[in-house]
Amino acid sequence: MAKKERLIVVGGVAAGMSAAAKARRVNPDMEIIVYEKSGYISYGACGFPYYIKGDVADMEALLARTPAQMAEQGVMAHTRHEVQAIDAGRRVAAVYDYATGRKRFEPWDKLILAAGASIGRPSIPGINLNGIFSLRTVEDALTIRRWLEEMQPRHGVIVGGGYIGLEMAEALAAHGVAVTIVDAADQLMSSLDVEIAALIQAELEAEGVEIRLGEMVQSFIGERLVTDITQRVTALVMGQGGSRGGLDNRFRVREVVTDKQSYPADVVIFGVGSRPNVALAQQAGVKLGQTWAVAVDARQRTNVPNIWAAGAVAEAFHLVLGEPIYFPLAQVASKQGRVAAVNAAGGRASFAGTVGTAVVKTFDLAVAQTGLSEKAARAKGWTVDCLMIEATSRAHYMPGHAPIHLKLVFDKNTQRVLGAQMIGKDGVAQRINVIAAALQAEWTIRDLAGLDLAYAPPFAPVWDPILVAANVANKE
Amino acid sequence: MAKKERLIVVGGVAAGMSAAAKARRVNPDMEIIVYEKSGYISYGACGFPYYIKGDVADMEALLARTPAQMAEQGVMAHTRHEVQAIDAGRRVAAVYDYATGRKRFEPWDKLILAAGASIGRPSIPGINLNGIFSLRTVEDALTIRRWLEEMQPRHGVIVGGGYIGLEMAEALAAHGVAVTIVDAADQLMSSLDVEIAALIQAELEAEGVEIRLGEMVQSFIGERLVTDITQRVTALVMGQGGSRGGLDNRFRVREVVTDKQSYPADVVIFGVGSRPNVALAQQAGVKLGQTWAVAVDARQRTNVPNIWAAGAVAEAFHLVLGEPIYFPLAQVASKQGRVAAVNAAGGRASFAGTVGTAVVKTFDLAVAQTGLSEKAARAKGWTVDCLMIEATSRAHYMPGHAPIHLKLVFDKNTQRVLGAQMIGKDGVAQRINVIAAALQAEWTIRDLAGLDLAYAPPFAPVWDPILVAANVANKE
Repeated sequence: MAKKERLIVVGGVAAGMSAAAKARRVNPDMEIIVYEKSGYISYGACGFPYYIKGDVADMEALLARTPAQMAEQGVMAHTRHEVQAIDAGRRVAAVYDYATGRKRFEPWDKLILAAGASIGRPSIPGINLNGIFSLRTVEDALTIRRWLEEMQPRHGVIVGGGYIGLEMAEALAAHGVAVTIVDAADQLMSSLDVEIAALIQAELEAEGVEIRLGEMVQSFIGERLVTDITQRVTALVMGQGGSRGGLDNRFRVREVVTDKQSYPADVVIFGVGSRPNVALAQQAGVKLGQTWAVAVDARQRTNVPNIWAAGAVAEAFHLVLGEPIYFPLAQVASKQGRVAAVNAAGGRASFAGTVGTAVVKTFDLAVAQTGLSEKAARAKGWTVDCLMIEATSRAHYMPGHAPIHLKLVFDKNTQRVLGAQMIGKDGVAQRINVIAAALQAEWTIRDLAGLDLAYAPPFAPVWDPILVAANVANKE
Repeated sequence: MAKKERLIVVGGVAAGMSAAAKARRVNPDMEIIVYEKSGYISYGACGFPYYIKGDVADMEALLARTPAQMAEQGVMAHTRHEVQAIDAGRRVAAVYDYATGRKRFEPWDKLILAAGASIGRPSIPGINLNGIFSLRTVEDALTIRRWLEEMQPRHGVIVGGGYIGLEMAEALAAHGVAVTIVDAADQLMSSLDVEIAALIQAELEAEGVEIRLGEMVQSFIGERLVTDITQRVTALVMGQGGSRGGLDNRFRVREVVTDKQSYPADVVIFGVGSRPNVALAQQAGVKLGQTWAVAVDARQRTNVPNIWAAGAVAEAFHLVLGEPIYFPLAQVASKQGRVAAVNAAGGRASFAGTVGTAVVKTFDLAVAQTGLSEKAARAKGWTVDCLMIEATSRAHYMPGHAPIHLKLVFDKNTQRVLGAQMIGKDGVAQRINVIAAALQAEWTIRDLAGLDLAYAPPFAPVWDPILVAANVANKE
């Protein structure tokens, strides 16, 4: 019997596990090995804010598959194993086992890079104090929730007003923490236009969150840990290994100092600076794209034969822009992982691309976008027209209806729909998908106005907000 | 100054009022007159079940615009006026005024038929007993709610398991009525495939609704009205005029007799047999289509010059079937009314057509469809493939997630998406719209699988039910 072909998957979360499971189904004969640096595989990282908040009681609910379950399917998944180097010519990977402290060399025939992203910690004085967290891994989520429950912090500062910042504001507030979001930019959610960001800000402020824009964090001030409780939590924090190596064991954060003022804080969440983990790719000779993530084609191939890349380590092709972007979201990672797997396992598949569709919840508000914002379109040289409407999510007389603000961006010359942003407390997340479909179909605003959308008073008004916007855009 | 051009709109509800308001905006110089047979204009008929249930406290909330408000905009809207005849050659309409009992002749230059539909009452013994209602007009809705509140019926029979039947089952149950739905067909909701209909039936039965399929109502048995309360309600019923003319004043319904058995009933809702009000059109020489509703082109023109038609009196072009259907829903009526108005007022507009998108709520369940059912596609000679999946509306670990059953129908040869049916308690109504867009874009199941849909745990799973279905369809 011939030696089995071996696939190594670097990274065992969204893209990696999607890839491993798919490769198994496509090719039952392949040997499939996953190496994951953290202690867990196949976890729903997007659920962490809800675990921390308490909507999700147990972390187990976020762990889709264990290594034992993967083994039953014939996928060997090794946690706390880091692929530290790849020899693409000889097809060998150097794998470090955190449990044993040993390095070994594993041959491979095909390799999928799915190493994800990390949150970079800037070199700010006090950055390693206890109580300052970022949120990427299961270990991070466990530690933050335990810190909240055991330390009962009163003041929290979130650095960065992006997705994680907005979600964590809700989570911290649920624990009775008075939250301040500090961001160096002049608006929240930099991917959105300023008038939508202003609506988010107003809602957060109505929920009691303090928003400080245009401020740079310059240092963190700590205080000595004194109580037994603190020591217990500290022990927990220290027990998480690798990624928190620089932690200062004896001090915890007390104050966040910006270039303008300082804020009391007994918990800090670092929600900025998500960066693809490309060091391994670069070492292996895999080329990066203009966004500094791994460049891939539609089949998720890198420039190196037999190496594919998928998920937050890689770029994704933006169908409206017509160029690759860095868009490290789980739904893209899962799709790319499957595509990489099919190709690595001997089949043929292509990633259809993204139009940048995303949604985030903060308190009761849903914030969604697809395609280009006005500023992004203008920055790319488009001659755009746009409008913003306010309409109701359901028939105005029905319980549960809420206003939706919808901004539509379209090409002034061709009338092609370029993007939309939507915000509201009801019926936003699914509605954005209709416009995502319109973008993928390359529709004009006239096509959009012709949409045959479902109507019933408990779910939508007779003129859906999308149709209202399209009619206004068409000057009809 | 030249004499103003005059537009007469026959019917003042969805299509009619949409037309009148739009014509006013397009052409400020036109004289615009609306004649409405009932006592109210511009009402949200789709909201009646929620008024009857009590979700909507006051009927005023369903009345979007009064004749006085229309007058301020320069539209003369006359209620309790019926256009009884049209002379298309001389352009004169015979108008009967119910208040004065007088008929007059009104000249017109342009005319829009928006007379809507009626529920036909079959010639069944006892059909005119008190307590037997259909639901089309404000008067019907007021009477039914009052009957429920004052008579406190214990047993209700709904004849017909379509949209109105499902909605009214919820409304009656909210008043403590034990509900039985009787339908001559062998499934509820004949526009759906049987396996989806079976899921609706199971949910209704779980809510305590008795479902009797394959039974024909043959007669109604009454009893003499005895109490003061009954007399008050009877007086109310009699006060509503025209449409209830045959009402028997002294008896109320007690029992519904079918070809198989009989059911106690102190309230009966007739929810079958919605038919376009085409008598006037036929008298005027306006041609009907194959569905027996008024035939119109994309500009809502009839065969008679200067007469347009819109809404439930007319057909609508089905984009997937490639032929006209009868699809008397408010969202189509509103769009067609606008199109008719633009053209009648001297502009140029076209109706984009329908793909048959619809949603209905019954108890906590949403039932949605777009495009063709499997049986409809097969009946038209399509070689179809289809599948049904069950998936979750949100991340499986989030509060509020619920299963969604999604049936996807596609062309076996071309892989083109032909239709979808969706049922569930969360996230159904907006999701169907994404597939509606896919139908309008003439997508294949592969295109559907490439959709870039928003993901966040509180709103959707990382693999949206639509993508799950598309992946299964693509055998991926």
